[in-house]
Amino acid sequence: MAYKAPIKDQLFVMNELARLDQIARWPGFEDAGPETAQAVLQECARLCEEVLAPLNVAGDRNPSRWDNGQVHSTPGFKEAFRQYAEGGWQGLQHPADFGGQGLPKLIGAACSEMVNSANLSFALCPLLTDGAIEALLTAGSAEQQAAYIPPMIDGRWTGTMNLTEPQAGSDLSLVRTRAEKQGDGSYRLFGTKIYITWGEHDLAENIVHMVLARVAGAPEGVKGISLFIVPKMLPDAQGQATVRNDVHCVSIEHKLGIKASPTAVLQYGEEEGAVGYLVGEENRGLEYMFIMMNAARYAVGVQGVALSERAYQHAAAYARERVQSRPVDGSTAAAVPIIQHPDVQRMLMTMRAQTEGSRAMALVAAAAHDAAHAHVDPGQREANRRFYEFMVPLVKGYCTEVSLDVASLGIQVHGGMGFIEETGAAQYLRDAKILSIYEGTTAIQANDLVGRKTLRDGGATARWIAQQIEVTEAELAGSGSPHARAMHRRLTAARKAFIDVVEFVLEHGKAHPNAVYAGSVPYLMLSGALVAGWQMARALLAAEHRLPSAQGEDAAFLRAKIATARFFADHVLGALPGRRDAIVEGADALAAMPLEAY
Amino acid sequence: MAYKAPIKDQLFVMNELARLDQIARWPGFEDAGPETAQAVLQECARLCEEVLAPLNVAGDRNPSRWDNGQVHSTPGFKEAFRQYAEGGWQGLQHPADFGGQGLPKLIGAACSEMVNSANLSFALCPLLTDGAIEALLTAGSAEQQAAYIPPMIDGRWTGTMNLTEPQAGSDLSLVRTRAEKQGDGSYRLFGTKIYITWGEHDLAENIVHMVLARVAGAPEGVKGISLFIVPKMLPDAQGQATVRNDVHCVSIEHKLGIKASPTAVLQYGEEEGAVGYLVGEENRGLEYMFIMMNAARYAVGVQGVALSERAYQHAAAYARERVQSRPVDGSTAAAVPIIQHPDVQRMLMTMRAQTEGSRAMALVAAAAHDAAHAHVDPGQREANRRFYEFMVPLVKGYCTEVSLDVASLGIQVHGGMGFIEETGAAQYLRDAKILSIYEGTTAIQANDLVGRKTLRDGGATARWIAQQIEVTEAELAGSGSPHARAMHRRLTAARKAFIDVVEFVLEHGKAHPNAVYAGSVPYLMLSGALVAGWQMARALLAAEHRLPSAQGEDAAFLRAKIATARFFADHVLGALPGRRDAIVEGADALAAMPLEAY
Repeated sequence: MAYKAPIKDQLFVMNELARLDQIARWPGFEDAGPETAQAVLQECARLCEEVLAPLNVAGDRNPSRWDNGQVHSTPGFKEAFRQYAEGGWQGLQHPADFGGQGLPKLIGAACSEMVNSANLSFALCPLLTDGAIEALLTAGSAEQQAAYIPPMIDGRWTGTMNLTEPQAGSDLSLVRTRAEKQGDGSYRLFGTKIYITWGEHDLAENIVHMVLARVAGAPEGVKGISLFIVPKMLPDAQGQATVRNDVHCVSIEHKLGIKASPTAVLQYGEEEGAVGYLVGEENRGLEYMFIMMNAARYAVGVQGVALSERAYQHAAAYARERVQSRPVDGSTAAAVPIIQHPDVQRMLMTMRAQTEGSRAMALVAAAAHDAAHAHVDPGQREANRRFYEFMVPLVKGYCTEVSLDVASLGIQVHGGMGFIEETGAAQYLRDAKILSIYEGTTAIQANDLVGRKTLRDGGATARWIAQQIEVTEAELAGSGSPHARAMHRRLTAARKAFIDVVEFVLEHGKAHPNAVYAGSVPYLMLSGALVAGWQMARALLAAEHRLPSAQGEDAAFLRAKIATARFFADHVLGALPGRRDAIVEGADALAAMPLEAY
Repeated sequence: MAYKAPIKDQLFVMNELARLDQIARWPGFEDAGPETAQAVLQECARLCEEVLAPLNVAGDRNPSRWDNGQVHSTPGFKEAFRQYAEGGWQGLQHPADFGGQGLPKLIGAACSEMVNSANLSFALCPLLTDGAIEALLTAGSAEQQAAYIPPMIDGRWTGTMNLTEPQAGSDLSLVRTRAEKQGDGSYRLFGTKIYITWGEHDLAENIVHMVLARVAGAPEGVKGISLFIVPKMLPDAQGQATVRNDVHCVSIEHKLGIKASPTAVLQYGEEEGAVGYLVGEENRGLEYMFIMMNAARYAVGVQGVALSERAYQHAAAYARERVQSRPVDGSTAAAVPIIQHPDVQRMLMTMRAQTEGSRAMALVAAAAHDAAHAHVDPGQREANRRFYEFMVPLVKGYCTEVSLDVASLGIQVHGGMGFIEETGAAQYLRDAKILSIYEGTTAIQANDLVGRKTLRDGGATARWIAQQIEVTEAELAGSGSPHARAMHRRLTAARKAFIDVVEFVLEHGKAHPNAVYAGSVPYLMLSGALVAGWQMARALLAAEHRLPSAQGEDAAFLRAKIATARFFADHVLGALPGRRDAIVEGADALAAMPLEAY
């Protein structure tokens, strides 16, 4: 099924909800207004629709292949990556000083959604490279930045993140890879890293591994972890990266999905040790890695949006074509396209509402990131920084969990055909399942939401969000349309449930951590749905405002937006008050269950 | 991961909730008391644990293979099927007159759960054979019964159901396969059938295809469909099945899951026409097929229970072993097995509660089936028949939808390991996805629930169920324990939400079918969760009653049952009132969405 980039919805969200026009008033983003955004999105759409999307199924059927330490990517990927790099897409959000375009994250996120919709496995390679660039921009020396960032931006080299080891997954305190300091200031690394996405491949000349390891004598736990650059190829006497470093891919994983993306087991130091260069200071590696991980977590959330969009498009196209059964209302005696059946509409609208809600929350968060960095008012920068930080676990956790449901519904719309791999719908479910796991499982995001994002500031950001939602509620009350009234009622009830939960977390977080953390994922899912619904409420208001002066395709788009927002209100927001109790009162059953009884 | 049959829980449900002791008082089931049940379950467990379960992964990695019209099953399956047949398992629920054991469906369902937990792909072959036997028992002539049932019961032959054609999936009115009557009273069939589970294989000597087709001149639509027996092998002059019939497997599907189970495309009448024998009367095929489908739908619901149980066992075992991260309550400074983390407990308890709730509702429904056939009181037979009929779409729809969530949570408990195929958790998700599709998608079950099971009797059965639930509520009120009090509150609120929804369906079913059917799947899921929760409430009461006199393992089991019921109350039943509105008021958004806007 051909992929069509959802530019109209992206621009609507960027202009109406994320206020791209404001971003273009801040220093550094003067050229990044709505017209630039539209031009960039259209150009990106061309690459995604014509080059990347057609390779998505091929990547699943003919995955990356390991052969004696080498990884051969799916045929076509190398050429696609060349076009991606030549188009300048790797540098979209990165500073012009290093060859990037310096565009806002808001535009970058919209493009990233498209690339991921088109080909999730492919998109992971640039995603990880972005992370490596981000880490070096934050903590690398000027020399390191100059040496590593430009070749990554121009696509000659790519980047990876090396955190996980067999015994150290979510728990990085257990990292054992060791780094031995050499006389010349460099280090030699020894250890095994697993789950290294695009950790070995043939798309680029060199791979810049960003690796967590322990220097001899470092403190135990997370305070003794340092961050190193370990290039696959080291410079020769002429400064050309031609000398093979002692890091080798010993195997790649056989996975449920994202099969074109090689997931490498990397062995460091089988011989003399892998040459590595310390980033920043010793023992501050986790801090630097968190910068990278924060960006990557947001990016994975966008992958969720992307996956949902693709699965929705696939299912809607099938539902329009597949003829089966007479309508339940008896309006005709013949079988009709299944899109006419109410339950198929319910499934498609669930998929669509979650996709649009996820997109709106992700893009509004991206705009907050831009404001946090570029807003002229320091108070606004700080407020936006807090909001963005609160949003990262929600975007990562909610958008990815939702994408799994959306992909599953996508199969269901296809009926028996959905279970047959040739149809293509099943790949989305298989691909989606990793999203709620890598870069921190949903539980890890929920820990972050409870601990660092709610308890640490005493609920200030959570309450601030609730206040912003109340502003939207007042606007809904002012509209008076039946859809706005329904949304008003659902949003108010959901916001109240959220505040109840926040108060519960604040009251019991210290004294009864087990009870609070037992509800942490439900809290995350409730918060995510609330924020997505809030954005759909704002979308409803904006659409109602624009509709009287709109015509043709634009008017149809706005009417569909209103209907989709209404659906979100009744079917998603409406369920939230019922989830409150399971968080606030749901831990008693766990307390009654001895561990040995499971 | 080794599979361990959950005999203790099955016997608890059979004895305490499904009242096996009563069944053993009815004529024909005198030998089917609790002791027989225990012996049969233990024997079945041995076969499942030692023979079938170890082949489950092999079937996924080395699926059935098509080669020039022949299908070669996974190595080991043929020998396993021989042991299954020799053990008499195919005849468990079938009449002794034909070589079966004549045991109640209650015992048969418990055994079926084990077989499916052990190896879902394998279990599909006997499941379909059961359907063919059922159809012949109901509608076959004495000669047909004598000729086909005994060899199916003794495992020399197997059976299939042939409904679907490329253009006729959920909508059987579109069936085109044609049957031409011959001078000798037999028919010749011509057409293509797809999605035929175990439609061709090497496990048995012959395959008895039960095929829907149209006789020339038959009425249009479902009223012109007849049912035929089309054996793969026809009898020779000596009556031995040695002559190849004109039905051929032209390919098998490449599927997301249940890969060991060949899903055949069967071509009837490529040459002279496939010889078929009419079952019952012409044009009543759909009626007969529905008998078979009703049994198969229930059986697929049990597959859902089975899949959930297996996924739970796998995840719980991993959570006990995998050490990662310190506890959030700071009780120790070292990393602990992840089962100590509250969110892992929440996931495992969600899996466990849904598994036990599904099992309880499925087995209680099986007991109603037995009562409907064997109870000495005709009024009780009728009441149980109505209850069982209402339960079939719930068991099929709810237990299978839930199994998908359980399998997905099972992967999540494993973290990154879950996404790696070697771990085994991913297979359960891939296998589970078919369960909500085949034998009628969840939407088809929901149509049945709304139309035939709710509207047709004016809500009488639905209201009767609500009254039974009120009886349980009164017993909970009488208990006074904190767990019973919590359950009471949740069950009452859920039952009221259910009645609201039933009244909505009754009021608007005729006048606003689109609105009612838009909420049909949510109505099914709410009803399923309510009935499962009701059974968990009864389990809680029974466990509280038994606990004072129980010791050791038994007491531990009962305490875990109480905790699991409490979890079901807070986390599943608690969410139901919040789903009411999406059903009762949720169709306005669909009405606002023009079809071309999707």
